[in-house]
Parts: sequence; structure tokens; C-alpha cells
Amino acid sequence: MTSQAALKQANTASLDALYGLVQSDLRRVDDLILGRVREEIPLIHGVAQHIIASGGKRIRPALLLISAQLCGYTGERHIRLAGAVEFIHTATLLHDDVVDESRLRRGLATANATFGNKASILVGDFLLGQAFQLMVGDGSLKSLKILSDAAAIIARGELLQMMTEGEPATAIATYLEVISAKTAVLFSAACELGAVVAGTDARETPLREFGSHIGMAFQLIDDALDYAANQVKLGKTVGDDFREGKITLPVILAYGDGNPEEKAFWQRTLGSREQEPNDLATAQRCLQKHDAIARTIALAGEYCHKARQSLSGFAAGPARAAMLDIVDFCAARSY
Amino acid sequence: MTSQAALKQANTASLDALYGLVQSDLRRVDDLILGRVREEIPLIHGVAQHIIASGGKRIRPALLLISAQLCGYTGERHIRLAGAVEFIHTATLLHDDVVDESRLRRGLATANATFGNKASILVGDFLLGQAFQLMVGDGSLKSLKILSDAAAIIARGELLQMMTEGEPATAIATYLEVISAKTAVLFSAACELGAVVAGTDARETPLREFGSHIGMAFQLIDDALDYAANQVKLGKTVGDDFREGKITLPVILAYGDGNPEEKAFWQRTLGSREQEPNDLATAQRCLQKHDAIARTIALAGEYCHKARQSLSGFAAGPARAAMLDIVDFCAARSY
Repeated sequence: MTSQAALKQANTASLDALYGLVQSDLRRVDDLILGRVREEIPLIHGVAQHIIASGGKRIRPALLLISAQLCGYTGERHIRLAGAVEFIHTATLLHDDVVDESRLRRGLATANATFGNKASILVGDFLLGQAFQLMVGDGSLKSLKILSDAAAIIARGELLQMMTEGEPATAIATYLEVISAKTAVLFSAACELGAVVAGTDARETPLREFGSHIGMAFQLIDDALDYAANQVKLGKTVGDDFREGKITLPVILAYGDGNPEEKAFWQRTLGSREQEPNDLATAQRCLQKHDAIARTIALAGEYCHKARQSLSGFAAGPARAAMLDIVDFCAARSY
Repeated sequence: MTSQAALKQANTASLDALYGLVQSDLRRVDDLILGRVREEIPLIHGVAQHIIASGGKRIRPALLLISAQLCGYTGERHIRLAGAVEFIHTATLLHDDVVDESRLRRGLATANATFGNKASILVGDFLLGQAFQLMVGDGSLKSLKILSDAAAIIARGELLQMMTEGEPATAIATYLEVISAKTAVLFSAACELGAVVAGTDARETPLREFGSHIGMAFQLIDDALDYAANQVKLGKTVGDDFREGKITLPVILAYGDGNPEEKAFWQRTLGSREQEPNDLATAQRCLQKHDAIARTIALAGEYCHKARQSLSGFAAGPARAAMLDIVDFCAARSY
């Protein structure tokens, strides 16, 4: 076995406990999702099938389901809310890919590349509509507030990210605000909803915090891996962020510590988006020189640490162990 | 005074009673809307200001406010819900203009032409998020259901419209389904919510029906005016639908009654979108030959008639009179 294959196995293994525990619930979430997009309008079915059935990890619904288990929930509401969370995520992906003009996601053609921008925009809106119908169907103003706040914050985060595009002098605080809004908030809402459906009010805050920390770590590592050519990439295409002029922490760190020549390099490639074939390799060398990938991963490690701490008040058991595994899995992606 | 100027005055005059009655409420809706987009992200403010402050008629919020008055409502909820309705409408406009690649709306540059597609998509999502936050803030599952259903149906209608694009053999029933979903549903929701906030359950159905009928009439006349070069256009650019390959009732009627040469003309210009400079004039002559504009307006007239009937159970008074004026105004746009 090659070291990469061993690593891949190790990474995959660590989510096994999670998916084992939520498997039957997750199947019901999938049925709910697919039932809602099995429409008489073929395009809806086509686009939704393309993005929903194309092998995403369903990490957000899984987080909601395992959080509900952790709180001892035995009812039915978590299925519907997990569906809503996945619909919000999927709608965001569809619009993101149009905005970023992405052609590939997880190594497959994006929906906008396959079906066109119009279809991606409108099916995104359709899925968002489905999400809100599911949320209203849940009948709880508390869960509605959590998820509608999350949707509003995500949209704001996407806009904030757009404003930082091509600006390598972006403040670290602004970057953290972007990833908190565009990624961590939905992780956080998913986990908090586990406590909400269970009616265990005291657990809402630690679970919300767990979700937020794991979401931050997840995005930081994603942003690090985007430049890590020799890593197991788990479906990421190396250099996407670079090509799209996206400003992530590795770039901000390397730019901040860079000499005038390096600063000019980042300004040309990301600011003016004038890129030549060897520029990605140059960018990677520059990040290496300033230890920017390792520093990004170290920050992710701090969020992983905080995520573990958020679970300290919960009694040991299979659900808690599976959630600690998620943290380990997240951290392991960076090795 | 020219006949066009006289006509314009007559048209404008007939909404005076409505706007007189809702003026102070509408000002509060505007304050709420602008307060929610006065963001520290300048782009949000810019785009939202561009589309919200660019002189739309606020007909949907006005319908909600006057419906609430008709039901004797004296509280505060209608302001917030009217804001949500306008946000949903504005988000739809932003996404529509990207999908249709429109450059002009009401004679002004569209947001996508001014700020780019990315900004329009993301600000649309942001405004939708604001709409849902306002709805959740209202705290009523009934109003949440009405508006989230409306948002889902609108998204489905936009997709259905996209599927009919370039297909002049589209069934009349499909066209009516499209305009019911993309236009009439939000008019209908706005009017129904007037009864909902007032707690006058028995008035929900007639007001919902009033809104639906007036919405259908509104869209039918819009679609007729798009080909009516010699009419007072009230901000419409003649020929937009033709250039975008949009299939509307005038075209469906003319195609259905057309000879093989005419059918080939519609297939070339709308199906293949191969258009030459004189084609719009030819299209107009063809519609004229089959009386397609007049027949479209006649159908709008039937919806106007039904809208008046929906108000028959309400006692006479200023609010009811203003709503009957809306019907007259709508019908008058076609003369």
C-alpha cells in the first residue's frame, strides 16, 4: 500500500463511526431530498440529481443527526431539518459555482458547466425555496430563526468574500469573518438544531460552538489544501482558489510577510489576475518559504482543540466519540 | 395636451387613491427596507439602492397594506411583511435580469449591467435572506407558510418559464401556469396577508383570489404591451420579450393560428433566436393580423372582472374603492 493510499484509508476510517450511527437517518434525509426534487420539470431533477447525488459527504446533515443523537432525541424532526440544511448548502454551491465560473467540483463537471448558468441560478433559488418550506413544516420558530439567520449570514459572507477578491492585503480578521459566515455558520446551525429538536436548551450553546469551531477548521484546511499539491486532495482541485483570485489565509500570511517582489507577484496574479503557466508553482514556493500552509493548518488545529473542548460537558458514549472522530478526521486531512 | 399625455395622466390618476391611503405605511416600509440594506458592505447598499430606490411602484407592498386596511387592521405587522414581500420581489428581479441577460429595466441600466452578474446573484440571495428574517420576525407560522410557499412557487415558475423559452408551440395552459407562479402568487400572498394580520380568517380566500386575478391581469397586459409599440409603455422597453426569446400569450396565439410561413418565422426568431433588424416589426404585424394583442388584453379583462367580483363581499369604503381603482388602472394600461 502506498503511503497516500494508507493515508486515504486512515482519513476515511475516522468518519466510519459517525456514518455508522446516522446511516439509517441519513438514508431518510436522502429520500426526503430526492422526493422533493423528483419534479415534473426535468431540469430541476437533472440539476438537483447532478449536485445532490454526486457523492457529497452530507457532512452538515450528519452533524445535525449526530447532535440530535447526542442529546438523546428520538423523534422525527431532525430528518426534515437536516434536509433543509442540505438544501441551503446545495443552493449555495450552485450559486457559488456560477459566481466563481467554476467548471469542476469534486473532479466532476459543475452544474453550471453541464446545465448552464441560468439553470444553476434558478434551481438554486428553487432549492432554497424547498429549504424554507421544510423549515416552516417543522413548525418551530426557534429552528426557523436559527436557519433563516444562517441563510442570511451565508449570503452576506459570500458578498464579503467577493469584496476581498483580488486583494491580498485583506486583513486576517476579514478573512476569518468570511469563512465564519460562508462555512462555519451552517455547521454551527446544524449542530445547534440537534439540541433544539431534543429540547435540551442547555446543550444549544456548546453544540453551536462545536459546529462553529469544526466549520472554521474545515474551511481553513480546505483553503490550505488548495495549494498543497502533494497532499491527498479528497476531491479538491489544486489551484482553484489561485485561479479564481480568491484570497485565503495562506496568501494573506505570505503577502503580509513578503518582500516587495513577492507582493508584486501576488498583486499581478491575484489582483490583476494576470497568470502565467508557472505562477501556481511560484505561489506554492512562496507559501512554503513563509510557512504559510503550516501556519494555516496550525490555526485549524486550534479550532479543532476548541471543538473538542466544546464537547467536554457531554457524557462519554458512541455519539460523543463519533463527534470527536470528526475533529480527528478534520485535523487528519492536513497531513 | 396630446392624447398620449392625457392617457398617461388618466393611468397615473387611478392609483392616487391607493397611494394616498397607504402613503404613510409605505414610507415606513421603505424605511425598513433601506435600513436593512444600509450595510457596511458598500456593494449591498449600492445594488439594493439601485434596484429598490429606482422608482418601482411598490405595488406588492401597497396591495398588502391596503388589504390590511380593508380588513380594519390597526397593528404593526403589515409593515414588516410588506417589506418581506418587496424583498422577495426584488431578489427575483435581480436573478431574472442575470438569467435574461437584461441590460435595461424601466429604462435604466439593470443591476447586473451596472454591478456585474456576481453581485446581482449574491445580493439577490442576501435580500432573500432578509425577507426570511423579516418573516420569522413576524412570528406567525401562518404568514411564514404563505410567503415561503410563494417563494418556492416563484422559483418553480421561473424554471418552468425557462423550459418554455424559444418554444412558440407552448400550450396556453403552461403559459398561464408560468405567469400564475412567477407573478400572480406574490400578488396573491400579499393580499391574503392583509387578512392574516387582521385575523379576519373569512377574508383570506377572497383577498387571495383578488390578488391572484389582479396578478394574472397585470402580467398578461405586461406581455401584451411588450409588443405594443404605439402604446404608453410605462417603463417597458418594447420588444424585450421578443429579443429574449420569451414565449408569451400573444406569440402563442399568433403561432397557433399562423400559416406555415408564419410558424417558420416564429421558430427562426424565437426558437433559433436568429433575429434581423426588421423582425420585431414583422412580429408586430403578425400579431396584429391574428388579433393576438387584443385577445391577450381581452383575457386580462376577464381576470380584472374576476378581481372585481372577489371584492363583492366587502363593504363599500375608501379601501375597497382604492382596490377597485387598481383593477381599473390595470385594465387602463392596455388602452
